[in-house]
Amino acid sequence: MSEPTINALVSPEGSLEILSNHEVNRLKDRSEGGLYRLFRQCALAVLNTGVEADDCKSLMEQHADFDIRLVPQPRGLKLELINAPASAFVDGDMLRANREHLFSVLRDIVYSHSIPSSAAGFRRDDPEDITNLIFHILRNARVLQAGRQPDLVVCWGGHSINREEYTYSKDVGHQLGLRGLSIVTGCGPGAMKGPMKGATIGHAKQRVKDGRYIGITEPAIIGAEAPNPIVNELVIMPDIEKRLEAFVRAGHGVIVFPGGVGTAEEILYLLGILLHPDNRDLPFPVVFTGRKENADYFEMIDRFIRNALGEEAASKYEIVIDDPVRVAQIMKKGMDDVAVFRRAMQDAYHFNWMLKIDPVFQLPFEPTHETMRALELHQNQPVHLIAANLRKAFSGIVAGNVKEQGIRQIQEKGPFEIAGDPALLEPLEDMLAAFVQQNRMKLPGSLSYHPSYRIIRGAA
Amino acid sequence: MSEPTINALVSPEGSLEILSNHEVNRLKDRSEGGLYRLFRQCALAVLNTGVEADDCKSLMEQHADFDIRLVPQPRGLKLELINAPASAFVDGDMLRANREHLFSVLRDIVYSHSIPSSAAGFRRDDPEDITNLIFHILRNARVLQAGRQPDLVVCWGGHSINREEYTYSKDVGHQLGLRGLSIVTGCGPGAMKGPMKGATIGHAKQRVKDGRYIGITEPAIIGAEAPNPIVNELVIMPDIEKRLEAFVRAGHGVIVFPGGVGTAEEILYLLGILLHPDNRDLPFPVVFTGRKENADYFEMIDRFIRNALGEEAASKYEIVIDDPVRVAQIMKKGMDDVAVFRRAMQDAYHFNWMLKIDPVFQLPFEPTHETMRALELHQNQPVHLIAANLRKAFSGIVAGNVKEQGIRQIQEKGPFEIAGDPALLEPLEDMLAAFVQQNRMKLPGSLSYHPSYRIIRGAA
Amino acid sequence: MSEPTINALVSPEGSLEILSNHEVNRLKDRSEGGLYRLFRQCALAVLNTGVEADDCKSLMEQHADFDIRLVPQPRGLKLELINAPASAFVDGDMLRANREHLFSVLRDIVYSHSIPSSAAGFRRDDPEDITNLIFHILRNARVLQAGRQPDLVVCWGGHSINREEYTYSKDVGHQLGLRGLSIVTGCGPGAMKGPMKGATIGHAKQRVKDGRYIGITEPAIIGAEAPNPIVNELVIMPDIEKRLEAFVRAGHGVIVFPGGVGTAEEILYLLGILLHPDNRDLPFPVVFTGRKENADYFEMIDRFIRNALGEEAASKYEIVIDDPVRVAQIMKKGMDDVAVFRRAMQDAYHFNWMLKIDPVFQLPFEPTHETMRALELHQNQPVHLIAANLRKAFSGIVAGNVKEQGIRQIQEKGPFEIAGDPALLEPLEDMLAAFVQQNRMKLPGSLSYHPSYRIIRGAA
Amino acid sequence: MSEPTINALVSPEGSLEILSNHEVNRLKDRSEGGLYRLFRQCALAVLNTGVEADDCKSLMEQHADFDIRLVPQPRGLKLELINAPASAFVDGDMLRANREHLFSVLRDIVYSHSIPSSAAGFRRDDPEDITNLIFHILRNARVLQAGRQPDLVVCWGGHSINREEYTYSKDVGHQLGLRGLSIVTGCGPGAMKGPMKGATIGHAKQRVKDGRYIGITEPAIIGAEAPNPIVNELVIMPDIEKRLEAFVRAGHGVIVFPGGVGTAEEILYLLGILLHPDNRDLPFPVVFTGRKENADYFEMIDRFIRNALGEEAASKYEIVIDDPVRVAQIMKKGMDDVAVFRRAMQDAYHFNWMLKIDPVFQLPFEPTHETMRALELHQNQPVHLIAANLRKAFSGIVAGNVKEQGIRQIQEKGPFEIAGDPALLEPLEDMLAAFVQQNRMKLPGSLSYHPSYRIIRGAA
Repeated sequence: MSEPTINALVSPEGSLEILSNHEVNRLKDRSEGGLYRLFRQCALAVLNTGVEADDCKSLMEQHADFDIRLVPQPRGLKLELINAPASAFVDGDMLRANREHLFSVLRDIVYSHSIPSSAAGFRRDDPEDITNLIFHILRNARVLQAGRQPDLVVCWGGHSINREEYTYSKDVGHQLGLRGLSIVTGCGPGAMKGPMKGATIGHAKQRVKDGRYIGITEPAIIGAEAPNPIVNELVIMPDIEKRLEAFVRAGHGVIVFPGGVGTAEEILYLLGILLHPDNRDLPFPVVFTGRKENADYFEMIDRFIRNALGEEAASKYEIVIDDPVRVAQIMKKGMDDVAVFRRAMQDAYHFNWMLKIDPVFQLPFEPTHETMRALELHQNQPVHLIAANLRKAFSGIVAGNVKEQGIRQIQEKGPFEIAGDPALLEPLEDMLAAFVQQNRMKLPGSLSYHPSYRIIRGAA
Repeated sequence: MSEPTINALVSPEGSLEILSNHEVNRLKDRSEGGLYRLFRQCALAVLNTGVEADDCKSLMEQHADFDIRLVPQPRGLKLELINAPASAFVDGDMLRANREHLFSVLRDIVYSHSIPSSAAGFRRDDPEDITNLIFHILRNARVLQAGRQPDLVVCWGGHSINREEYTYSKDVGHQLGLRGLSIVTGCGPGAMKGPMKGATIGHAKQRVKDGRYIGITEPAIIGAEAPNPIVNELVIMPDIEKRLEAFVRAGHGVIVFPGGVGTAEEILYLLGILLHPDNRDLPFPVVFTGRKENADYFEMIDRFIRNALGEEAASKYEIVIDDPVRVAQIMKKGMDDVAVFRRAMQDAYHFNWMLKIDPVFQLPFEPTHETMRALELHQNQPVHLIAANLRKAFSGIVAGNVKEQGIRQIQEKGPFEIAGDPALLEPLEDMLAAFVQQNRMKLPGSLSYHPSYRIIRGAA
Repeated sequence: MSEPTINALVSPEGSLEILSNHEVNRLKDRSEGGLYRLFRQCALAVLNTGVEADDCKSLMEQHADFDIRLVPQPRGLKLELINAPASAFVDGDMLRANREHLFSVLRDIVYSHSIPSSAAGFRRDDPEDITNLIFHILRNARVLQAGRQPDLVVCWGGHSINREEYTYSKDVGHQLGLRGLSIVTGCGPGAMKGPMKGATIGHAKQRVKDGRYIGITEPAIIGAEAPNPIVNELVIMPDIEKRLEAFVRAGHGVIVFPGGVGTAEEILYLLGILLHPDNRDLPFPVVFTGRKENADYFEMIDRFIRNALGEEAASKYEIVIDDPVRVAQIMKKGMDDVAVFRRAMQDAYHFNWMLKIDPVFQLPFEPTHETMRALELHQNQPVHLIAANLRKAFSGIVAGNVKEQGIRQIQEKGPFEIAGDPALLEPLEDMLAAFVQQNRMKLPGSLSYHPSYRIIRGAA
Repeated sequence: MSEPTINALVSPEGSLEILSNHEVNRLKDRSEGGLYRLFRQCALAVLNTGVEADDCKSLMEQHADFDIRLVPQPRGLKLELINAPASAFVDGDMLRANREHLFSVLRDIVYSHSIPSSAAGFRRDDPEDITNLIFHILRNARVLQAGRQPDLVVCWGGHSINREEYTYSKDVGHQLGLRGLSIVTGCGPGAMKGPMKGATIGHAKQRVKDGRYIGITEPAIIGAEAPNPIVNELVIMPDIEKRLEAFVRAGHGVIVFPGGVGTAEEILYLLGILLHPDNRDLPFPVVFTGRKENADYFEMIDRFIRNALGEEAASKYEIVIDDPVRVAQIMKKGMDDVAVFRRAMQDAYHFNWMLKIDPVFQLPFEPTHETMRALELHQNQPVHLIAANLRKAFSGIVAGNVKEQGIRQIQEKGPFEIAGDPALLEPLEDMLAAFVQQNRMKLPGSLSYHPSYRIIRGAA
């Protein structure tokens, strides 16, 4: 509440952003249709680096008197900050990383909103147009770089992990960095930060000067998961689905560290895509990894996947326990396979055009009692659609656990009902129970878990 | 006709351009709405560097079998050229400059056509939106660079000048380069090339590594005025009016070398803008310069301006004869004044937002017998509108001289009639007569000049 | 013994070193006067990164079959390595850091031995010439960079420190890095590595691309204290005294972390120099720092210094407990003071020419029973000479503890006798006893400490 | 005499030079053994860029009040100039090129004089040591760059050439630059400047950012042949023979433009070396080239070489008339051959270690009546020694024509007598007569030529 704050005038040193007067005016516009509110919220989030925040709402409340203004200057734009969190400063000077993040926020908000739904023939719900939009935002953010070999390893996993798990994720990052690979994460602390920190040291030892630490986020989560200052390329995608697609189109492989139910959702998203028949032969290295203590966790995940999605799904990933060198070697080898494949297919290194993503993974899923009850949870459908529906189930549980709207619905109408084929639901119920037992479902602040869901077997 | 040609696969070395599949498909589209025809035409023009061509039409006819194809590659796009003019190659390898120009063409065509008239709220004939569009195209072409001091000198003048005039323009460029200034021109040979060549040597002596040689052109003239290979930043604006506005918004000062009636048109455009009351105090250095032999030419221009537009107009420029050092010193001093002014006004160095441009200079003028006859050529109007109307008169004469449509109209209906207040028309007629006498009106290839205009005094 | 080894051909990627045939031949020369043996020994040491080794001798014995050969190539020299320690490689490729270190070794050995004692008028024992020689070696190693602000913080302290002490040294490095400061150490693990690792992360957050991690070593210790791979500038000085002088001439401030008796020796070296009357007004920030647990250690050191050298000596340093931010702020402030002073004095930022170093600190001290017994340990001398003599006493004890020759002498003739004024010797004896008690004198491998010295009070 | 002068404080922007106090003191030392006089003389010469000067002596006389002082600064050395020639400045600021040249002079004078004759085992007259010394000076001047492909074309030819010849040399440079080749010359105007200017434009068109314009000179000629400001790497070798050796060791091919008798001397130096039996298979492209008007000149040279040295000598070069493209293509092809050969031989690209240079070409030749009369001008010797002796004959004639000492000797004792085998001397006499007739022997300022030599046939 009484966190120290600082007023500052920040120059875009190192930023390439130049705005038109028109764009400046939109960012200044505090009316409903203007961008000021969104800009202020995201700016505050990136300034809150390193400070644990529960969510956007509390962040906004704590910093009600924070303000940000655009100040045009002959050499480019400056930003004036009023009551900015002091944690973004070193001896009164804003950390260079934070300055860059501020201007990334500005760039992406302006860009995403300068493409109206009708523009350039973009249709909001056309799969190809969604992919093109993602391409355009990433290109404008200079994330797509021509002429680079595949080297982007996406790292997923929990934010609140223990010291040993954090150290393990650093070790993996170190080995990736020693092999010249770069890191993409979803921002935030924990398994999102460790690999970057480790890769920084690995890159230093290999004199890699252009190591990349890419954070891909979106306005709804940036408040709770601020980019750590090692992130040297920050992208704000318009929503969660586009953010997930950005990971799998721009990244060249994925490493999953232990996490909660959210991580399970991400795994199902990834497998759902890789299981699409068109993607059968597409190389895409995936490794689940953790310390010896995490072996059980991954065994349970593995068992659930085999039961629900079959052996082919299990062939899409490799589980590596307590061996950072091997994780990095698998990724390095995988990058080479990706390069060979794309060369053969004349597809770009910097964007995975060939990856087929079913629209079911692109369109937003709004969890309600109706949509949750209506999920098609049976095996009479292609396996990638099973994954899609299971992912939606997880998504609903996450919402019921932590998201404002989900919690309200459950308070009003009781837990979400999830119904379907017992062959699918039994393993699901077992895994959820295990999550509860391992305290992976506990909400921040609360002591015990009141399930946000109820499994109804066989009633689909 | 039988000019030697070469087939080649060209990689975008040094280019930063990355295209989406969507964009590639539009460039490949040979249908009416597709961009292929425009792309092919501009590509051919930039490959024809250094070869004198009368116009686009003959260029196209000479290279009817030229073709260009986009070849997606893992590391970015390649271009396949069929029957490309051999003059763009050195020992079978395409000149690096030409490779860059090809990818600049591609970049600007894609970009200009990805902003539909309705997009982002742009309105086609709103002055502010036109200016914003120019800003966006220049920004996308990376011509606008934050953090640079004002240093861009626009050089205008004739394309077909004699050896001594060319050498003089090189000497001026040399002195500009020695003072760290950069060059912007409209592409083509003659006074468009000399200053760049001279500046290259000046920059080499001052170890200026980031010297800029910017060429701003548009599809209609690029065929006749191909960018010379020293141009290291090429921009293709959508039309002539936007090209002219790009010059005065991005440039920080203008030097005019001797030229024909086209140069006179440019002078009137420039003065018309600078004479707008809102621009009264805006620093904008303008120098007319040439060799001793050109003193008469500039005296005549000066006399015409004083008569038609008054003494204030004449205060907007300085005439310097045979003194490259002084020209460069005036420009250098002028850049400093621009910097001081913009700092005081908090306006950008890289784009002259404050310059007021009357819509009459932004909207295209279509010369016909009707529009020419209807020109308001009298002194009962603000002086900047007198300039605007005189500029249109010149524009019509140029069209009647050299542009396909203008020539056809005159063949059909006789010379354009220009009517108005004798106080304005007499000096005009005198100057035009002098141009004819000095052979500045002779068409390429023809031996004598048949006027494309007829002055009707007092009949406005 | 059976440590895995690798054969490799290493190219000098990133190295600027070009050798003449003459120099190559000297490095290949395996005869007595040739440089091969020295080159092989140092090369082996830098390849042994991260592997704890007791001393050079055992390192050499373990790798008796290691060989290194120079292979001239059109693009510069390559090195062929036979049976090189596998720890220097990642998946069969030599770590870039190690490659650079190999070529640094080569550079410094060639350079130091291309200046014969008689050359360029250098006299071996002339103070000014010794300083000039140090300057030349550092300049040739490109450690001296014109145009940089003072930013080099020398970090001294023990090599074998515990996990918490290591983490603390990393935290200090992190705060230094956040303030744009760079690190100089004596190579090796522990307090030599922690600050560099922390600074790497700090520099990444501040986007400092040219952060410096300088290691200054010499042939006698490089075997036991191999440079860690973060070191991006490695210098091999000819001997210990020149190495110490390189620290205080090239560095702009010193941080001392807890260490053993060797660290005490370094402290006395530093204070001895700073206490010279000519250096009275020279700004030179010095901080002793450690965790709460280390407070006693520094209190003891502080007490000893005040007693032996007086209050002025104690005014030369500041003790900071458990506060990395404050340590970094003191250093940052100190750098500014250094800059102001050198500007006023027109002295170079990159080399502390004005620092007066008494020859007693430049000439090597050979500890024997005779020289130890003859030390002038009384207070009838300038305070900087008291420091010099105490430093020699410590140096002898270190030699008696761990150096081959010292141990042999003590085995033959019993402990070194140290005699002098009780006012000086009593505090010394107390501190040494405390070191023994705190296990800071235990030899590697041995269980209890048999003192290598005997204090004889009042018998000077 | 009354040329305008300027006082200035010059900072070493862009220079990497750092001096020790010792070195600064040597440069300041105005006593006989000090370096001040030499430094001042060379500094004045490089400031006199573009101003035609007859010789060092008159330059010194004209600028008797010129002074240069070293001013140590925290960020490195500055130079204070008193009464410096104004031609080195643009609007009061020293041309960046001149600033760099000043610091190159400083660097090379300090370095050459810090290697005493006895140092590092160098022996003054040992061929291998002379070559090593040249290597060291070039390395210290950073002319030797590891990792570059062979690309250095040495351009020789006359300084006072006419406008058309100058333009032709520019055209050749342009074509070399378009092919990515760089230029090495001996400094000065004319054929030393044209190729560099042309290459600058060629490099600009090919976006070659690291084009090299190397000038190699020595203290005795720098006054008369100041480096032009395009030279971006200036080296001052200790004497003429080392300068010539630097050309053929660091350069990868030679182009000879028309010149006077001095050019003939250079041709004989080059052929003498290439004709050494050890160099028989060494690729070394040599082209003599000029305009149509110069065809006779090269025909005469060619005839003389065939007569005097035989057909093998003539096979070492190619004569190309009026065809810059072909000259550049031959050079480009020759560079490739050099690269293939050095790779096969494991010799460095950056220094031609394998080129065998007979000591007769390394040791200075002092022309006197005795040494000239004693020249072995007959065919009973290896052909490379015939070339060596002929070269000495030319050298003597040059000295008798223009060098102070030579002129004095001839005034005292009459022309040098050159005696020997008529089979050698007849062609020599014919060629010299032709030179006289073509006004290539006329001294500066004098109207007719009084021969400085007398041919005595058959009296050897």
